[in-house]
Amino acid sequence: MGEFDLIATYFKRPVRQAVLGVGDDCALLQPTPGTQLAISSDMLVEGRHFLSTVSPERLGHKALAVNLSDLAACGATPRAFTLALALPRVDAAWLAGFSKGLLALADAHGCELIGGDTTQGPLNICITVLGDVPVMNGKSQALLRSGAQVGDDIYVSGNLGDARLALEVFRGHQQVPASVFEQARLRMEQPTPRVALGQALRGIASAAIDVSDGFLGDLLHVLQASQVGARIDTDIATNLIAVRAGSTWASAGFDPKMDDARALRWVLAGGDDYELVFTAAAADRDQVAQAAAQSATVVTRVGTIEAAPGIRLMDGHGKSVSGHFPSFDHFQS
Amino acid sequence: MGEFDLIATYFKRPVRQAVLGVGDDCALLQPTPGTQLAISSDMLVEGRHFLSTVSPERLGHKALAVNLSDLAACGATPRAFTLALALPRVDAAWLAGFSKGLLALADAHGCELIGGDTTQGPLNICITVLGDVPVMNGKSQALLRSGAQVGDDIYVSGNLGDARLALEVFRGHQQVPASVFEQARLRMEQPTPRVALGQALRGIASAAIDVSDGFLGDLLHVLQASQVGARIDTDIATNLIAVRAGSTWASAGFDPKMDDARALRWVLAGGDDYELVFTAAAADRDQVAQAAAQSATVVTRVGTIEAAPGIRLMDGHGKSVSGHFPSFDHFQS
Repeated sequence: MGEFDLIATYFKRPVRQAVLGVGDDCALLQPTPGTQLAISSDMLVEGRHFLSTVSPERLGHKALAVNLSDLAACGATPRAFTLALALPRVDAAWLAGFSKGLLALADAHGCELIGGDTTQGPLNICITVLGDVPVMNGKSQALLRSGAQVGDDIYVSGNLGDARLALEVFRGHQQVPASVFEQARLRMEQPTPRVALGQALRGIASAAIDVSDGFLGDLLHVLQASQVGARIDTDIATNLIAVRAGSTWASAGFDPKMDDARALRWVLAGGDDYELVFTAAAADRDQVAQAAAQSATVVTRVGTIEAAPGIRLMDGHGKSVSGHFPSFDHFQS
Repeated sequence: MGEFDLIATYFKRPVRQAVLGVGDDCALLQPTPGTQLAISSDMLVEGRHFLSTVSPERLGHKALAVNLSDLAACGATPRAFTLALALPRVDAAWLAGFSKGLLALADAHGCELIGGDTTQGPLNICITVLGDVPVMNGKSQALLRSGAQVGDDIYVSGNLGDARLALEVFRGHQQVPASVFEQARLRMEQPTPRVALGQALRGIASAAIDVSDGFLGDLLHVLQASQVGARIDTDIATNLIAVRAGSTWASAGFDPKMDDARALRWVLAGGDDYELVFTAAAADRDQVAQAAAQSATVVTRVGTIEAAPGIRLMDGHGKSVSGHFPSFDHFQS
């Protein structure tokens, strides 16, 4: 099967929203009146962003999910995406699974595949997403990193740390029961982009980012862009790891006393979570709760924006917590 | 140097056109009133799209050029692009050269780098370009592949075949004097996207495509999309190879009689030319000439659109020419 048959078989579908989709030199998209275009690109490389053990279907999901997560962090409504794919060889089973997972998530978000490229080479997946952000009274409703104010609450959506737990099991550094591993592995391999929450937070959140490299590292981008600092409650943060909930933690073989530090490390610096970290004025707590309810997404208040630069970790009793929490860097970890 | 320093050092520049550029979750672009957005992605892999011998500066140029060529084939005005880059390691000299060549071409076309991704992995360059296409009286001015009509002239811009000649020299299949090689090599490593010509042809050309895989193969996409066929004059085509001009051919050691067939093969199926192939009504020859003059681009009339499917090659005397001209396929060649 050649390049053009491959595209036709697995990736070409009837055009819906776009003026022109896959199959010409360019795709054509009609801008939505009263909006700006939000654009983001993410490239996924084996061993860096996914393991060779991942199923093609989950990988297809994840490749788009990490891009939709960027749109979510911007408060954008997904519209379309391009896919550039380098494959070592044409593998029909792999392509069928990959395109199934990819297009299922695309359909769930009304985000249309409008073009791209396929070539032979070491496996590499590059997706560029396009979304709409409303402009109201001349002001963009995009959620930026630069808007956090001293006194704002700091929130995080969903759970943190489970993807890292799964990675540690894969690496042989951690052992857990199969059911716990499957739960964590699903979070690593098939993350949920918080698209509805991002849109619901337009006009409410003062700043937002998605957690890809690790909570502290990504929060730091917000703090630097906003020229502020933060205090984080580690007792709340430690509980953000999903597999810690209920009796799972003990049944998974974790000693609640011994393993708190490990859990905290996975939560604060695990990476690959694709949750939203955002800030909002303390006066807007009801609105944040409404946005969370409206988007059926749990959000947790984990700290406060302060004037002093940097991040201070404190437990529930106000006692300083120290530790080494290196954030994920695709050239350094 | 980590990922964020790398971006800041080599790729982050003050935002000009875009509302928001490199450094947030998404870039923001304000659509131009009365236009549609043209979008295209191209991925470049070493050994497939460039050789390891290419200078980083020329590679930076080429990576954007092949994408701008898609906008040109659509008649779009370049606006912005994203760059996703997988690098085996952070190499300052390579990055300095690559970004220099990339951004010089971007500046020449007013096409702004607004975002992207960098990661560690086998060298892979993925660019997505965005351009504007005017909509006039509700009709998109985009040049599509599907508009060729029986009786239309077929044109090609610039020269064809020189990139392939250079590749054959690199492969050791051909020997030419150094000056000829340098001329051909420049065409292979630093192609000129025909952006101004594409824009000038809006409202004149009935169909267009850029030549990346090879003239015949790419023309065939136009013919299939338009449900027509074509006749090509091989005497004219043979002369499209630039290094054939004047006395160069003989001085390069080519025997005019013996090597015509080889030249024709490079012209018709060489690939990597990034010229425009387009069709226009015979009544519009003056308008085509004006568009060519206005964009300072040579165009050559090489054939005619016919009703019968497929491509017929004929010499200047109307005699049928046969030969095997496989087009480049990134999974088959």
